Amino acid sequence: MIEKRTPIPVTEAIKKVMAYAKEGEIETVQLEEAYGRYLAEPLCADHDVPPFDRSPYDGFAIRAVDSASASLTHPVEFEVIEAIGAGDVAKQVVQPFQAVRIMTGAQIPSGCDAVVMLELTNEYERNGKKYMSIKRSFKPGDNISFQGEDARKGDVLVPKGTFINPGVQALLATFGYAEVKVAKKPRIGIFATGSELLEVSEPLVPGKIRNSNSYMISAQVIRSGAIPVYFGTLADDVDECLAAIEQVLDDVDILITTGGVSVGDYDYLPTIYERLGAEVLFNKVAMRPGSVTTVAHVNGKLLFGLSGNPSACYVGYELFVRPVVRTRLFSPKPYLRKKTATLLADFPKPNPFTRFVRSYVTVQDGRLYVFPVGMDKSNIVTSLAKANALMVLPGGTRGFAKGDTVNVWLLEDEEGSAV
Amino acid sequence: MIEKRTPIPVTEAIKKVMAYAKEGEIETVQLEEAYGRYLAEPLCADHDVPPFDRSPYDGFAIRAVDSASASLTHPVEFEVIEAIGAGDVAKQVVQPFQAVRIMTGAQIPSGCDAVVMLELTNEYERNGKKYMSIKRSFKPGDNISFQGEDARKGDVLVPKGTFINPGVQALLATFGYAEVKVAKKPRIGIFATGSELLEVSEPLVPGKIRNSNSYMISAQVIRSGAIPVYFGTLADDVDECLAAIEQVLDDVDILITTGGVSVGDYDYLPTIYERLGAEVLFNKVAMRPGSVTTVAHVNGKLLFGLSGNPSACYVGYELFVRPVVRTRLFSPKPYLRKKTATLLADFPKPNPFTRFVRSYVTVQDGRLYVFPVGMDKSNIVTSLAKANALMVLPGGTRGFAKGDTVNVWLLEDEEGSAV
Repeated sequence: MIEKRTPIPVTEAIKKVMAYAKEGEIETVQLEEAYGRYLAEPLCADHDVPPFDRSPYDGFAIRAVDSASASLTHPVEFEVIEAIGAGDVAKQVVQPFQAVRIMTGAQIPSGCDAVVMLELTNEYERNGKKYMSIKRSFKPGDNISFQGEDARKGDVLVPKGTFINPGVQALLATFGYAEVKVAKKPRIGIFATGSELLEVSEPLVPGKIRNSNSYMISAQVIRSGAIPVYFGTLADDVDECLAAIEQVLDDVDILITTGGVSVGDYDYLPTIYERLGAEVLFNKVAMRPGSVTTVAHVNGKLLFGLSGNPSACYVGYELFVRPVVRTRLFSPKPYLRKKTATLLADFPKPNPFTRFVRSYVTVQDGRLYVFPVGMDKSNIVTSLAKANALMVLPGGTRGFAKGDTVNVWLLEDEEGSAV
Repeated sequence: MIEKRTPIPVTEAIKKVMAYAKEGEIETVQLEEAYGRYLAEPLCADHDVPPFDRSPYDGFAIRAVDSASASLTHPVEFEVIEAIGAGDVAKQVVQPFQAVRIMTGAQIPSGCDAVVMLELTNEYERNGKKYMSIKRSFKPGDNISFQGEDARKGDVLVPKGTFINPGVQALLATFGYAEVKVAKKPRIGIFATGSELLEVSEPLVPGKIRNSNSYMISAQVIRSGAIPVYFGTLADDVDECLAAIEQVLDDVDILITTGGVSVGDYDYLPTIYERLGAEVLFNKVAMRPGSVTTVAHVNGKLLFGLSGNPSACYVGYELFVRPVVRTRLFSPKPYLRKKTATLLADFPKPNPFTRFVRSYVTVQDGRLYVFPVGMDKSNIVTSLAKANALMVLPGGTRGFAKGDTVNVWLLEDEEGSAV
């Protein structure tokens, strides 16, 4: 029996899925494990930065007023009463025409209000005492990094949901986050279906292909910030499938099946959804590739039935699963980053439905350009390796020509988009 | 005693370092561990793709010639002699006006040369036999994915040194790479120096700051594709330092120290390099921040003495260490990706030396724009969290104005640049 299916627009399909997206759990990790995770709480300054007035250079801390008369012909002499390294604090209060030898990062001694760089001084000794002289004047505040000039105690420096890059990692260390609250990575179960699938290590035999989708999806899962849990290939038997799915459902946050969703005699996912008691949100989307994508939920847990076709499977993950994952990771920008680019090649094919073309975005002279990678047939796998974007051509349009402006969704991008 | 140092241009410094960059080792990993690694050998097709002529749709395989007379008013009838799923092979050779029910991905049966999509057929039974009829004609080759149309056996599909993204992962699976030869991740040792440094978990005390550089650098090491090995903080004692460095040198591929490289009394790295028998490639670069970056080598092993200042340290890693790491990972594009962008804000400061400004590159209407994040003082750490690029302003230039075109080097980018 052939099921009747009504395709819904892509934007509506995404909206239906995202109605079930929710923020995930929080876990605490050691700072050295935090890179690449997502902040589960805002990063706040626990102190002023710098925490005290400090020297950005190696040199001498002085009272600026003492340097007022210094000139090339009339150098001013200072007695060097102490030397402090970074981490030291001067013991004495500096008096008129005294100076403290100061290293980069050290606290400005009491009484001083300027730093003279080492290169601008002349050092010498006389009667067992150290001196230095300078040939120009300085203003109060010269060469001083002032307390709090970078950040004030309590400032929110990085919002919740931010990807922890090396700079964020530095801030976490600076503000004493020896442990960091991060979003717990969701666990995403993966089943492949299809009796035509061989394991990767098996030799090819007539009529069969190797199972590439589960490896591809696993990588997409990791890229999106989650943990793939591959459960193997489902047999072509409804009862066995149902038992296998029911067994793992409690162990994962999201379940993906690839294949078994076309309108065909051998596709049994609709039966399985029904027997699971799952509500099907949609089973056809007005898009190419991936029109047979099915999404359902059981008690709020999302089940994604992605196409067995590699390109459709890839697009289905990025469109429907990724934003759910990023929402669990507290990201305020869960969607692929959306930009426009100039088309570098004709794309004459008409688009009865919204078309997602595996493409490569490049930048020349400060402008974005895009071209499709490989032929746009949904069974072509090689194009996925080169794609760094999906070119999005709206349904109901005829072909596009070189030079046209088109929409592109970026694949290799941490930043994302709020809509 | 103050050491005399002669600054060299940035490009010359990079060239001196890269003279010691070399390809790294190879290791074999399971396919499921390959995502995010770098290919150590080209990925080749071990078979044609598709491996046989196959159906991209659910429908019926026919002999196109039989459909020649089909029209809306005169449908042509076919006897359905068999049904095959993906992975099955038809048992019979199709005769005139016979058809085989075929599922997506299945091999085209002998004798057939076209596929009719299910939606275009009318199915019925008569006298216990199955039939279907169609109302239009098809040409030979219609709706067939031909053997080898995507790739031919032996084709190099992805070159050595490529980052393994989800699409490359799919190709590896498709072509039977159950194990993958990837670049072994180099081990990068990290020492922090400076008696002003507190551990992250310690409360702040006057004159001290928390050690953020080693965490930041560790994250940069991971981002660049290597393994950070943090050895802790070096004491302010030359003999102890030397012993500590000598002890770990055999265990790492590259050694980084942060801090201890300024021209100052407490900076002892020059002494250590000398006692190690290391050749110093340069100890001053005509750049801001990071002018005091020192690079040396012992028997070809590179030692990077990065500034203790967070921004200088960050820039030093990306400019000098990253391309060495990427070369070890076989990348033909080891450098940061270089583009131009339109400046969104005035940058009035003159640039006596090449200046690297932590910046944010954004895309609007298909064009790249850039603005500096935070004030450009090298001791400001917060700007690093927001930066996704370094704006590169050549030495000897005056300020730049909003609207000017400037060079940007992208930080969060896998692709890189060959020069």
